[in-house]
Amino acid sequence: MTAHRHPPAKQAGQPVVAIVGVGLIGGSFAAALRASGAAGRIIGVGRQPVTLARARELGLIDQAQTLGQAMQEADVVMLATPVGAVAGLLAAMCPSLRPGVIITDAGSTKQDIVQAARETLGDKFSQFVPGHPIAGAEQTGPEAATASLYHERTVIVTPEADTDPEALARVVAMWEGCGARVMSMSAERHDRVLASVSHVPHFLSSSYMWQVAMAPDSDQRLAVAGTGFQDFTRIAAGSAEMWRDIFLANRTAVLAELDEVRQAMDRLEQALQAADHAAIDDFLERAAVARRFWGSRTRLP
Amino acid sequence: MTAHRHPPAKQAGQPVVAIVGVGLIGGSFAAALRASGAAGRIIGVGRQPVTLARARELGLIDQAQTLGQAMQEADVVMLATPVGAVAGLLAAMCPSLRPGVIITDAGSTKQDIVQAARETLGDKFSQFVPGHPIAGAEQTGPEAATASLYHERTVIVTPEADTDPEALARVVAMWEGCGARVMSMSAERHDRVLASVSHVPHFLSSSYMWQVAMAPDSDQRLAVAGTGFQDFTRIAAGSAEMWRDIFLANRTAVLAELDEVRQAMDRLEQALQAADHAAIDDFLERAAVARRFWGSRTRLP
Repeated sequence: MTAHRHPPAKQAGQPVVAIVGVGLIGGSFAAALRASGAAGRIIGVGRQPVTLARARELGLIDQAQTLGQAMQEADVVMLATPVGAVAGLLAAMCPSLRPGVIITDAGSTKQDIVQAARETLGDKFSQFVPGHPIAGAEQTGPEAATASLYHERTVIVTPEADTDPEALARVVAMWEGCGARVMSMSAERHDRVLASVSHVPHFLSSSYMWQVAMAPDSDQRLAVAGTGFQDFTRIAAGSAEMWRDIFLANRTAVLAELDEVRQAMDRLEQALQAADHAAIDDFLERAAVARRFWGSRTRLP
Repeated sequence: MTAHRHPPAKQAGQPVVAIVGVGLIGGSFAAALRASGAAGRIIGVGRQPVTLARARELGLIDQAQTLGQAMQEADVVMLATPVGAVAGLLAAMCPSLRPGVIITDAGSTKQDIVQAARETLGDKFSQFVPGHPIAGAEQTGPEAATASLYHERTVIVTPEADTDPEALARVVAMWEGCGARVMSMSAERHDRVLASVSHVPHFLSSSYMWQVAMAPDSDQRLAVAGTGFQDFTRIAAGSAEMWRDIFLANRTAVLAELDEVRQAMDRLEQALQAADHAAIDDFLERAAVARRFWGSRTRLP
């Protein structure tokens, strides 16, 4: 809590880290870096002065700076803003991007960000390491940030052939220092997998919640909704702005996965139409067994 | 824990309650009745001797009996079995059903059970009070039973015009004694509302989980699935047998609701296809606001 009163001098060997967007994701990265001792000074950058002030009070960052100031000092820049803001930030950063400085991000989609980085950074593209920590919570903002958010969680990096190997290794080491498991895959693979396990569930939960909310008798429905409803719809409460950006950025993969889920729905619906006990049993049992196995393997209930 | 060693004599004014199926639902009803002092002796009936023995050890029931024995002594019979077993039980109970004895149930569907009760009980149908506690948990069996399961939860009763008003009042009072809020509606209304807030979410969650599990790269998908996936799929781990019965028993309402959810999905998909930012925002925002309002009203997160 007193760190910002006496900003430490840059420690030898420890990089100065600038974090753009000090909310749950960026703030937790800051907290975890500080806990691991892997960062020297931590600079916060953002649109909202009140958020930056709060992040400083909480000891997440050492000081708040403009993007231009931060670019003069930072060795590593983490972009932890909504996906829609990343391209503009990269364009603003490029002219003052010094050799050897690493940029990485925490965006939920990767093909669009890689393409934007390639277009805006040009021959400095190799300094950019695309990343995505698979972590989050219903809470937002620096108050929700915690050094343990990434502990035992997965972080995916999607390096391109021309990504600087040393920059990649340093970003991987920082995430591992935060307690995360790092997986590497192509940006295309990432987007297809995330469409499946994150974006389509949000699409379905939101579509369902919309239908219940718009029904003429929605009050009566919601009055009897229980814990199953609670779990199934929790993700639908997420930020509309953030999810609109994700759906648009990953539109092709989301629509392709959605088509496959619709085919699965058709299959169960046809079995139900036909009152085919064995087919319904088999379908539900495969889903139940897969979910129970996943729960036991991940130790998430 | 010692209750079963000295089975209490029937207490004056306190009904002898027989519970058929002493798992989570029936066992918790037993525990809550005992805690409220609203029951005299509690008799357990069931197919599995080991479950009944466990329920006795846990103090949920005072003794285990056959259905025939229980019908000689019970003043109130609660059917807490899977929905598919209720019609057979009613048929078996009818010949020995004494005047004034109340039968009630905890089944997840109501039109099919009301129809089965009418057909099997004939002119004794007025003694049957159809009910459905909206409570449950991932756990099953008597070990999971708890006196607090129904505390501040909703129980729906669906009396018919010829349901005995006194029997209805006694069942309502028992549930209120368990800490529940009791709502009354028609069986048809119940089935439509539950199709919406319980059965369709299970249909969607299971269809989605099946699709992920059957994908050629399901291992990779499941390796990166996070907390959103966890919440969205939790209900898909439920008993395939139980949910097959529910889907079949409430088939018409489930298919009708599912059709409306598909229309909502079409709407969001069309907005996404057209990259219509405003339409996507509006759709997601309505869903998010409705979910947040429900969460704040119910104090379920």
